Amino acid sequence: MRTIDWVDGAIELVDQTRLPGDCVFLRIETVADLIGAIRRLAVRGAPALGVAGAMGVALAARTGEPIDALRAARPTAVNLAWGVDEAARHLPDADAVLARALEIRDDDIAACYRMSALGADLVRELTEGPDRSDASGASGGSGGFRRIRVMTICNTGGLAAVERGTALGVVQTLHERGLLAETLALETRPLLQGARLTAWELGRMGAPHRLVVDGVGPYLLARGAADVVLIGADRIAANGDTANKIGSYSLALGARRAGVPFVVVAPETTIDPAITSGDRIEIEDRGPGEVLSIHGVRLAPEGTGAANPAFDVTPHDLITAIVTDRRVIRVDRGETPYESGTA
Amino acid sequence: MRTIDWVDGAIELVDQTRLPGDCVFLRIETVADLIGAIRRLAVRGAPALGVAGAMGVALAARTGEPIDALRAARPTAVNLAWGVDEAARHLPDADAVLARALEIRDDDIAACYRMSALGADLVRELTEGPDRSDASGASGGSGGFRRIRVMTICNTGGLAAVERGTALGVVQTLHERGLLAETLALETRPLLQGARLTAWELGRMGAPHRLVVDGVGPYLLARGAADVVLIGADRIAANGDTANKIGSYSLALGARRAGVPFVVVAPETTIDPAITSGDRIEIEDRGPGEVLSIHGVRLAPEGTGAANPAFDVTPHDLITAIVTDRRVIRVDRGETPYESGTA
Repeated sequence: MRTIDWVDGAIELVDQTRLPGDCVFLRIETVADLIGAIRRLAVRGAPALGVAGAMGVALAARTGEPIDALRAARPTAVNLAWGVDEAARHLPDADAVLARALEIRDDDIAACYRMSALGADLVRELTEGPDRSDASGASGGSGGFRRIRVMTICNTGGLAAVERGTALGVVQTLHERGLLAETLALETRPLLQGARLTAWELGRMGAPHRLVVDGVGPYLLARGAADVVLIGADRIAANGDTANKIGSYSLALGARRAGVPFVVVAPETTIDPAITSGDRIEIEDRGPGEVLSIHGVRLAPEGTGAANPAFDVTPHDLITAIVTDRRVIRVDRGETPYESGTA
Repeated sequence: MRTIDWVDGAIELVDQTRLPGDCVFLRIETVADLIGAIRRLAVRGAPALGVAGAMGVALAARTGEPIDALRAARPTAVNLAWGVDEAARHLPDADAVLARALEIRDDDIAACYRMSALGADLVRELTEGPDRSDASGASGGSGGFRRIRVMTICNTGGLAAVERGTALGVVQTLHERGLLAETLALETRPLLQGARLTAWELGRMGAPHRLVVDGVGPYLLARGAADVVLIGADRIAANGDTANKIGSYSLALGARRAGVPFVVVAPETTIDPAITSGDRIEIEDRGPGEVLSIHGVRLAPEGTGAANPAFDVTPHDLITAIVTDRRVIRVDRGETPYESGTA
């Protein structure tokens, strides 16, 4: 299944607001409709937004709509603006724009397979040290190797990309290799991408998993319940600071205290060399509504206010490694995505 | 308003499962009904459970019901078993049992006022240091003093006690003294005591507040959005390790990294000298149902499993101070609730 694709002159994408109850595809024929779909998170996830941005320019080349509002529909993930810019370089040649959009789609699919494999190799290496071996065999085994327990947040599976995911792509590869013991998925308030989307994808893969509330992450890490934390990214600064779904920073603090590796998995296109450090990343506040109710059920008294930053920034000193489709950046060994003259 | 009281030969208590929509009092005449109310969290909060336990024995002295199941209705908060034991010492003298239960009720009210004052004094001292002064005056002021921004989790207000709360009692005192700028209340999944109960109590006090999801806590601390974290406790070990609502440990990690004081507020009766350290505190797992749905709305696909530890343990090295009704224990200066021979 492809989360987003170009079919008969228009975008078709899974309406993620209706999962896990219904798996319905939307057909999007105008830039205006695409912006609406992005804003209400019918399509979300940094890689998928890159493809959506590029395909949106292909729509614009046909409809004549402007693309500025599309580029800015969500501010934190760099991929959306990147996808728009990449395709827009070919304007007004509609065929060339579409060709570039399809190329970005295909590149994303290939990139996710590559980073899944690189990430799975790294996770095995990070969790294989002699001090982590399980002499009792209580954690089960596969070909003499300990199976791995992963903690993750938000949704970084195929639904966040085109066909295969980033951090959840690594989980999928570990599962395919017989190395996955369990995934602990944080539900990811306010929009519950973990409960709705990640649990749905893990169920479809047949991969063992349990759902937990967001506040439980650091505690379960302290109790030794996971061997590695894997997250995606919406924007990575040149120094490795990583913006990702709100709650990621909390997991990074918990992982550090517990001595558990904390690994970011994202395509190269998520790295923004123009941003020297995380404090320069714009963080989207999505307004109080998402905090004050769930699926239309009001949670707090009338008149309650709320803050709702959708992302946080994990400083690079808490990150073990960043895995992209091209390389493994060992942040714990002082490597950074880009050398930066101005910090 | 009293959350729980003894009225005409029975317990009357606010049904907290119906807040904030309805403020309804239940009349409880049997131990069996009380156990049901405790298990479904119609009455909750460590101090209120202590009073409920003692008043439950007063019911038992009349009905002849056993009290073992009452004592064990919830395992983590020490106050419930303590209240049962204190009252049970006077069995079978029903009048003496009731007198002790009413004494425990009155002691709780007085204790909460004392710890609110001690806590407010401490918070002012901790946030007044020269390196925290706000030369620009941007945070507002009151009589030349900077007003204080508090972060808290779960509900530790009057609803968790009898008349006035513990950590939220401190917030109330700060507000009464004109020293409160804002309270950031974590919603506290899975049961949303922050969204339902704390927001309701802060609204009734007229104290400024905003609601946030649990994952946002450490990030807002890193951004300098709060001057102090105040939490309650369900059980405090002799060395200061503190069991409290799941998510508290995450806030402690965030507070430490941000250099923000982290203060526990609880009555002396919450300290359990028989427990030498936090790893010996039993943590209640309340089963998957609370994680998988909210107010009857299913969040995750059918067949999804969940882990649901209701509490976590914050190690004492992350705690600045513990405020009780009798003393301020400066854990950051090496003080512990009890000297312990066996660690």
